[in-house]
Amino acid sequence: MTNKKELDKITPMEVDFAKWYTDVVKNGNLIAYGPTKGSLIFKPNSYGIWEMIQKELNSIFKSKGIQNVYMPLLIPESLFALEKEHIAGFNPELATVTHVGNKELSEKLYIRPTSEVLFADLFKKSINSYNDLPMIYNQWANVLRWEKTTNPFLRSREFLWQEGHTSHSDPTEARRFTREMINTYAKFLKNFLAIPTIVGRKTPREKFAGACSTYTIEAMMKDGKALQSGTSHYLAQNFSKPYEIKFKNKENKEDFVYQTSWGVTTRLIGALIMTHGDNRGIIIPPRIAPTQVDILELFANKDEKVSKVAKKLFIDLGRKFRVNLDSSEKNPGFKASNSEIQGVPLRIEIGPRDLQENKVTIVRRDTLEKELVDLKDVKDRVGILLEDIHNNLYESAKERLKNRTVSVNDYDDFKKEIEKSNFVVAPFCCSDEAEERIKEETGATARCIPIKDLFKPENQESCIIPECKNGTKRYVVFAKAY
Amino acid sequence: MTNKKELDKITPMEVDFAKWYTDVVKNGNLIAYGPTKGSLIFKPNSYGIWEMIQKELNSIFKSKGIQNVYMPLLIPESLFALEKEHIAGFNPELATVTHVGNKELSEKLYIRPTSEVLFADLFKKSINSYNDLPMIYNQWANVLRWEKTTNPFLRSREFLWQEGHTSHSDPTEARRFTREMINTYAKFLKNFLAIPTIVGRKTPREKFAGACSTYTIEAMMKDGKALQSGTSHYLAQNFSKPYEIKFKNKENKEDFVYQTSWGVTTRLIGALIMTHGDNRGIIIPPRIAPTQVDILELFANKDEKVSKVAKKLFIDLGRKFRVNLDSSEKNPGFKASNSEIQGVPLRIEIGPRDLQENKVTIVRRDTLEKELVDLKDVKDRVGILLEDIHNNLYESAKERLKNRTVSVNDYDDFKKEIEKSNFVVAPFCCSDEAEERIKEETGATARCIPIKDLFKPENQESCIIPECKNGTKRYVVFAKAY
Repeated sequence: MTNKKELDKITPMEVDFAKWYTDVVKNGNLIAYGPTKGSLIFKPNSYGIWEMIQKELNSIFKSKGIQNVYMPLLIPESLFALEKEHIAGFNPELATVTHVGNKELSEKLYIRPTSEVLFADLFKKSINSYNDLPMIYNQWANVLRWEKTTNPFLRSREFLWQEGHTSHSDPTEARRFTREMINTYAKFLKNFLAIPTIVGRKTPREKFAGACSTYTIEAMMKDGKALQSGTSHYLAQNFSKPYEIKFKNKENKEDFVYQTSWGVTTRLIGALIMTHGDNRGIIIPPRIAPTQVDILELFANKDEKVSKVAKKLFIDLGRKFRVNLDSSEKNPGFKASNSEIQGVPLRIEIGPRDLQENKVTIVRRDTLEKELVDLKDVKDRVGILLEDIHNNLYESAKERLKNRTVSVNDYDDFKKEIEKSNFVVAPFCCSDEAEERIKEETGATARCIPIKDLFKPENQESCIIPECKNGTKRYVVFAKAY
Repeated sequence: MTNKKELDKITPMEVDFAKWYTDVVKNGNLIAYGPTKGSLIFKPNSYGIWEMIQKELNSIFKSKGIQNVYMPLLIPESLFALEKEHIAGFNPELATVTHVGNKELSEKLYIRPTSEVLFADLFKKSINSYNDLPMIYNQWANVLRWEKTTNPFLRSREFLWQEGHTSHSDPTEARRFTREMINTYAKFLKNFLAIPTIVGRKTPREKFAGACSTYTIEAMMKDGKALQSGTSHYLAQNFSKPYEIKFKNKENKEDFVYQTSWGVTTRLIGALIMTHGDNRGIIIPPRIAPTQVDILELFANKDEKVSKVAKKLFIDLGRKFRVNLDSSEKNPGFKASNSEIQGVPLRIEIGPRDLQENKVTIVRRDTLEKELVDLKDVKDRVGILLEDIHNNLYESAKERLKNRTVSVNDYDDFKKEIEKSNFVVAPFCCSDEAEERIKEETGATARCIPIKDLFKPENQESCIIPECKNGTKRYVVFAKAY
């Protein structure tokens, strides 16, 4: 497994983006395929990213008073069936347990595709009065949705996620919480994954099955396609009525609670790869990287000083950063390539020649720039470079999102811009039929109705579809999407 | 929900230990029952303990070079069936997915009861030569085993665990690793859960289906029953042969890898409750407690100083300990009771009267002792008391284990001691038939063959069963068990 050989495995993204993505995820210690079609094994590097996402989100959740719980995997058919729109939306994708050993069960059990109905059952048992509200729970769990076509991280039959579920006494508070969580996600993606997003509301056709409204964050991948990266749903009383989640309000009258649910998934790992990756593989943003700095001993076996300095640096940097030490006897080219392909933001190469001048070489994964740094300055320099890499990754992605988002008022222009794989903002009537037509004719879907009017078209009069009689409701972002 | 009312809910353990346990787990923010029989909801307090267990074990695992991965939930029947003893052991408990939506699948899929065969598949794909070995993976996951009788935490159909899986080039190294992991668990239970255990090997009848040998740690609950609290299996080549996990050794010859697997589960939460709990509920050992110190403002609304001091203490203690602040307007009795029932090791009561002398009251959950402490000494005192609580819990449990473990050479004595719910050490032939007979006649099972000869009986000549012709093989610990 040499430098050359590894790099040969990755198709350049300019040649074939889809192939580039598949090549990248198969390398870099990211995934292996499981024994059933569309199943995925998270290898140490991708699971390590997920653990970092969990750690940082948990800390944010804690500051908001969100409590973690764990709900059962299996949902009885009768419980699932109470909310009709919800089960209709998920039914074709439900993996169904019918037997244990050789015995048939008296009722079918579904593997959770999401846990609204389980939380509904818990809320029903736990809530008595407005004093118990708001009740704000989250769980980290695996869920299954039997997708027809699969793509690692982006669309797999089993994925990992967090799903938050809340009950409120007041619809205004619940609506506010729905928006608070989508903004929390947008900030998290910006601050930790270096991914800019457009925050908006889904059109009726794209909203979550059972929700009153769905908010989303939409990110732009390097090929110009959109990736829905997190959602937050206002459920109103859509679940609390059929599931009878009642509470006594301050006037001692009975009411049904108002609910929200919200989640991000291991899809974020795909978002990160397709936002920052290059033809050498994944680039992990420093604040979320399981390893921030690789320390590589070059010719470790030939020079005692190399090994001594490396160990000292490992301990010293380890107090402040997440550091890994490669003191194996593999050749320098292999070590550098191995660090690159795993997407570690910085590597420090410690070799006998540099050490004669008390220097080491620091290499950035994003720009591949190398610099010789005095040993005494390494710690400070690492801190500065990691911040710089984060900012550089974020600004590059933001620049792309800005440059490739265009406003149109004409349907022919719309088609041309979609063909160029841009995000297109257009006035739109938001009807299901118009959305279906656009999808058929262009391959694009309505990504969201942006919260902020960032991309206001000049002419606000009519829907983008020429013959449309519905009138313009909103400015909507369209794009081809994963 | 007042003090009195909550306490009334818990049956004293002297009256009915099983009822006491059920009452405790239903209180203290620990569990709720899910919608299918035997399914469990982990509420914030129990899930918080599990998160702490994860955190501490992950840190230990990392220091040993163990890498976390995540494997798929579903196992195809054909893959599972390759190791005959393994599937025979698990088959009656396997939840089986046969349909997706209304469509029948071409092959049955089992929800993992454990992931040996999934890891076998991954190892087969990942290992080429001795250079790739040892390969040491762990995963945190949910698993399902359709148990006939269930008991919260101790035996539930779905539980959470970590399962480690390793491949080695050398049987000696693999055997050593098996023992290293069981000793790691014993140390973890001692140092973090304050639970002493007996480390030993399982008899052939009790070993894991598919293992060559199984090591176990056995803890003694307050009712004298044993709880198997962690296991480590030497799998030899039992999986690598049917699953064809081959590698080229140093002589460039092909061999099959030697494997181990090892795990602890959410059962540890049950162990902790039944080792340390009292008639007021759970007592969480300080090093694993999600909240180590509850700060309670008494008469918060009536005295500004109380609230000011409480907030300052919350920030100050928060730098070193896991602290929670209750500044609600609930009455003092409720607050104290709430802290007690949730098992928080220490609570600090801040009231106007004590504050006049610049003092606060610290209450230990284990002994319920109260002491008045000068504000300036609180931080030091909290540190000392938390250590003291850990030691006190551990020493009490150790004393019980010592006092209630007896050696016998006579089968009538054996029966009497088992009847008294003691651990009984006896010379034993280790045959399946003898074990079945003991179980039928006394209700006890062979817990383990201790690694250390702590309980050597005087007469080492014959098996404890009078008519047994097999001769004595080992000194074995017997007990009634969960």
